[in-house]
Amino acid sequence: MEHNLEHTIALLTRTPAALNALLRDLPEAWTLRNEGENTMNTFDVVGHLIHGERTNWMPRVRMILQFGETQAFEPFDRWGHVQESQGKSLRQLLDEFAGVRTESLDELRALNLRPGDLERTGRHPAFGAVTLSQLLATWAAHDLTHLHQLSRIMAHQYREAVGPWTPYLGVMQCAGHSSP
Amino acid sequence: MEHNLEHTIALLTRTPAALNALLRDLPEAWTLRNEGENTMNTFDVVGHLIHGERTNWMPRVRMILQFGETQAFEPFDRWGHVQESQGKSLRQLLDEFAGVRTESLDELRALNLRPGDLERTGRHPAFGAVTLSQLLATWAAHDLTHLHQLSRIMAHQYREAVGPWTPYLGVMQCAGHSSP
Repeated sequence: MEHNLEHTIALLTRTPAALNALLRDLPEAWTLRNEGENTMNTFDVVGHLIHGERTNWMPRVRMILQFGETQAFEPFDRWGHVQESQGKSLRQLLDEFAGVRTESLDELRALNLRPGDLERTGRHPAFGAVTLSQLLATWAAHDLTHLHQLSRIMAHQYREAVGPWTPYLGVMQCAGHSSP
Repeated sequence: MEHNLEHTIALLTRTPAALNALLRDLPEAWTLRNEGENTMNTFDVVGHLIHGERTNWMPRVRMILQFGETQAFEPFDRWGHVQESQGKSLRQLLDEFAGVRTESLDELRALNLRPGDLERTGRHPAFGAVTLSQLLATWAAHDLTHLHQLSRIMAHQYREAVGPWTPYLGVMQCAGHSSP
């Protein structure tokens, strides 16, 4: 389907509450384990989503509207959250994510983007011209990529425990596709 | 990690609220589209989870405790939900899932299973002897498999919309691994 701003906002609005319902006060055996060396645990994932709100999504929306293709976006640091998350609890991160997401969406709505605006272009440092519409669709799909990753990280912890059911559980076959 | 009954229950308790937060009143463009012929949409997934509560998980727990390996489980019909879901709204299914999950977990807790009980075995119609512990771990992993699938089904709808970001989004590379 084509990108639709209202559908994108509807999804972006729901992610913090969905993560909160799934992760708050869940035993740390689920939330602090990862899939192996250099992989994220669920704590990292929420930290990464917060970092994206601060440095990636709305900052890039603003850049498209202000500079078009004349200035490339800042590259996004996938591990940029590590320092910011240090010493915090998962509860704090979940609250923080809800807060920064609300701020982002308030700002996005206040822009009153029209269909013509969504075709405006910016410049990605790796692959060049992108439309505002593609950026916003990617923001929603990025939430889904991390929900997909979260479910896989947690399922990984029961890889042995499920015994002969492993081949019947799709999530157990998912290798992460070289990205989250 | 090894199977842990408290961890399993903690996860099983949270899934209905997580799905509710993600899916309730989301535009149908997200919830009624699937990934192509003979694939589930999110409406099917919630229906399938309800069907599993009624016919799969606790019924199999009971069978292990009552019959051990002397009687094989009923095979689980992956599309058994279709008739039951007909004419219902996604809101109704989300409420129903929360209700049947609560009933299942009340019954599970009331069994007061001890470590020794978790090693008791039953017989799966396809792959033979399985322990109660493996069945319970699979119940939790099955929730995660469908959360993984849900995020992929929804991301699929924006496959074109994200333009050049496709290769950077893990969920877009996930083919479903021949099972949900």
